[in-house]
Amino acid sequence: MKVGQKHYQTIWLSKDKRRLEIIDQRKLPFEFVIEGLENLDQVAIAIQDMHVRGAPLIGITAAYGLYIAALSAPLADQLFDKALAEAAQKLLATRPTAVNLRWALEEQLQHLKAQGRQSYEAKLEILAKHAQDLAQEDVRNCYQIGQHGLKLIQEIAKGKDGKVVNILTHCNAGWLACVDHGTATSPIYAAFDAGIPLHVWVDETRPRNQGARLTAWELGQHGIPHSIIADNTGGHLMQRGMVDMVIVGSDRTTRQGDVANKIGTYLKALAAKDNNIPFYVALPSSTLDWSLSKGHDIEIEERGSEEVTYIEGYLEAEKKLASVRLSPQDSPAVNYAFDVTPARLVTGLITERGICAAHEDAILKLYPERS
Amino acid sequence: MKVGQKHYQTIWLSKDKRRLEIIDQRKLPFEFVIEGLENLDQVAIAIQDMHVRGAPLIGITAAYGLYIAALSAPLADQLFDKALAEAAQKLLATRPTAVNLRWALEEQLQHLKAQGRQSYEAKLEILAKHAQDLAQEDVRNCYQIGQHGLKLIQEIAKGKDGKVVNILTHCNAGWLACVDHGTATSPIYAAFDAGIPLHVWVDETRPRNQGARLTAWELGQHGIPHSIIADNTGGHLMQRGMVDMVIVGSDRTTRQGDVANKIGTYLKALAAKDNNIPFYVALPSSTLDWSLSKGHDIEIEERGSEEVTYIEGYLEAEKKLASVRLSPQDSPAVNYAFDVTPARLVTGLITERGICAAHEDAILKLYPERS
Repeated sequence: MKVGQKHYQTIWLSKDKRRLEIIDQRKLPFEFVIEGLENLDQVAIAIQDMHVRGAPLIGITAAYGLYIAALSAPLADQLFDKALAEAAQKLLATRPTAVNLRWALEEQLQHLKAQGRQSYEAKLEILAKHAQDLAQEDVRNCYQIGQHGLKLIQEIAKGKDGKVVNILTHCNAGWLACVDHGTATSPIYAAFDAGIPLHVWVDETRPRNQGARLTAWELGQHGIPHSIIADNTGGHLMQRGMVDMVIVGSDRTTRQGDVANKIGTYLKALAAKDNNIPFYVALPSSTLDWSLSKGHDIEIEERGSEEVTYIEGYLEAEKKLASVRLSPQDSPAVNYAFDVTPARLVTGLITERGICAAHEDAILKLYPERS
Repeated sequence: MKVGQKHYQTIWLSKDKRRLEIIDQRKLPFEFVIEGLENLDQVAIAIQDMHVRGAPLIGITAAYGLYIAALSAPLADQLFDKALAEAAQKLLATRPTAVNLRWALEEQLQHLKAQGRQSYEAKLEILAKHAQDLAQEDVRNCYQIGQHGLKLIQEIAKGKDGKVVNILTHCNAGWLACVDHGTATSPIYAAFDAGIPLHVWVDETRPRNQGARLTAWELGQHGIPHSIIADNTGGHLMQRGMVDMVIVGSDRTTRQGDVANKIGTYLKALAAKDNNIPFYVALPSSTLDWSLSKGHDIEIEERGSEEVTYIEGYLEAEKKLASVRLSPQDSPAVNYAFDVTPARLVTGLITERGICAAHEDAILKLYPERS
C-alpha cells in the first residue's frame, strides 16, 4: 500500500539477498524506519520485540528468517539440517499465540525437504524463493479477502441510502500486519476504492496502541476517513447506532471457529451481538489451526507489565519519542496480549476462498482438503 | 482515607472559611497537591477540567461552590438571590452527565429558601453549614454502602475456601470520587479491614486513566493488593475464572436501574453476564435520577479529542510530568466519557439503604418516598 506516494510492502530481501528488510513498526507513526536484519538473532528479536507484528507478517518473517539463518549455516548436509531445525525452534519460541509462525516454519522445512538432496547454494535459493512465494501468496490471499469482504460492505451500503458506512476495527489487521492489503482492512480498502462512502472507528488498542499508531496511520496514508477511539467506546457507539459492522483480524482460529485475536476483541464481539451488529473476522487460511477445536486450549501470551504501566509517544516540544510512566511506581500490572472470541459471537469468517460461518462444517466446506 | 499515614477527605473549607480546598486529582499519583479555590470561576474550572471528579464529589464541590459564590455576591436580597441562581446555572453547565451536580445545587438552594428571610451573614453560614452537612452525609452513605457490600464479599469468600477473592473495578469510584470511603471501593475497604483475602483488578480506564492513576494509588496507599490491567483485559480474565465479582460506581442511574458510568462499563457488564459473574453498581441515592426511566435518555458528555490523542505521564529521566502524542497528527479522535449499562446486565445496586435489584419496584422498596 502507499506511504506518501510510494508503494511499499512490509518485508523484502535486499538486492544482494544478504539482508532481510522490514519496516520497524515500533517507530510508527512518528518515524518511518527501514531496518535490515542480517542474522537469525536479529530476526528473532524483530519478531519477539514486535518490530514486525500481526499473525500473517510474523509467519512470513519467520519463513525469511530460516533463509537468513541458512546464510550462515554449516555447509555439510547434516550440520545444515541441524542448524536449520534449531533456527526454526528459536523462531517458534518468539511468540506463542500466532499459529502462522508454526505454519510458515513447517512450510519452509517441508518444501526444502521435498526438493530432495541439493547443493548448499541450491538450498539457499530454494529457501529464499519459497519465502518470497509465501509472501506473494499472502498478498494474493489478502487481496481475495478484500474482494469477498467488499460484497458485505456493498450490501450494507445498499441499505444506507448513500449514508456513510461505519466500520469498527480493533488492533491492526492492516497491511502492516501482513505483506500488503491487510486482512480486516482489505475489504475496507476495496470498498473505499469502489467509491463506497465509509468511516472507520479505530480502537486505539491498549496496551501497545496498534490501532492509534498503525491502523490510523495506514488508513490516513490511503485517505480513508477514520476516528480513533478509546477501546472502551465501541459498546456505546453500537448502542447508539453508530456502527454498521465490525471487522477484526485473527492470530489463531480453531477448526470450530473460535477466534484468538488481540485482547479486547471478545468485548467488542459481545457488544456487537447485544446490538445485532455483524461481527466478521478476516483471516487467511494460514491462521486456521486445524489441530485445535476449542479456543480455550489456545495458549495466551502474557507480556511484560511495563507495556501497561509505561507508554511511548511523541514529545512535541522536544521533537522526540519518549516513554512516560502512567501509574504509581509500586502498583503491579498484568498484560495478556490476546483473548478468545467464541464462535457463537462471530457472524462470519472472511477467508481467501470466501465467507463462511464460524462453524466446523462451514469452514470445511471451504477447505474440504482438511476434512 | 489514608495518604501516607495521615487521614484525608477530598474536600474541606479553609479555617477562615474563605477558601475551598481540594486535592488536585490531575496530578495524582505523581504529585499530591492541595489546591485552594477562592471564587466561582475557580470552582467551575475545577469541576469542568476535572481537578475533582466522580459523581458524588462533583455534587459536594458544587454545593460548596454556591457558598464560595455567595462570599462575593451582592448583599441586597434580590441581587443575592439572582447571583446565586446564576452561580448554580454556571456550575450545572460544567458536566452534563453526573446527576449529583443538579441534586446538590437544588439541595442547597431549597435548603436556603426553607430558612426564610435571613441576614447576609446568616445566609453564608447556612450555605457553608449545609455543604458540610451534605459532605458528611456522603461520608455516612459511602460507609453504609461499604457495610452492605461487605456482606456480598463475605458470601463469595465463603465459597472460596480461604482463596483470594478477585474483584474487578472500572474507573475510580473510590474515596477520591467521593468525600471518603468511595462507592465501589467502600465494600473493598470494608472487606480488607475485615481480614478477607482479596485482590483488585484495576481497569486503567482510558482515556483519562482514572483507574491506573487514582484507583491504583488509593488502593496502594491503603495496602490493598491490586493489579492494573488494560481495559481490554477484563473479558479474558472473566473467561478464565479470574474474576469473582465486578463492582463499579455510577454517574447517574435511572429509576428503572439503567446505569450511566464511565465509558467501557457496559462492555464489562456484558462480559460479566456472559460468564455468570455478579456485576454490582455501588451508589448513594443522590446518584439516582428519579426523573428518568430509560438510560437511553441520559445525555452523554463528549469531551475533547486531545484526551485520546495525548496522554500525560511521568518522564522518569527528567523527573517531571509530560504529555506525549499517541497517534498520527492528522488522525481525528472521538471521546465519549460515559456509556449506559442496561438494568438487565446489573446483578444489583448497593445503596446506603441496602442492596436491591436494578429494577424500579426493588429500588422503590428501598426508597418508598419516591413512589
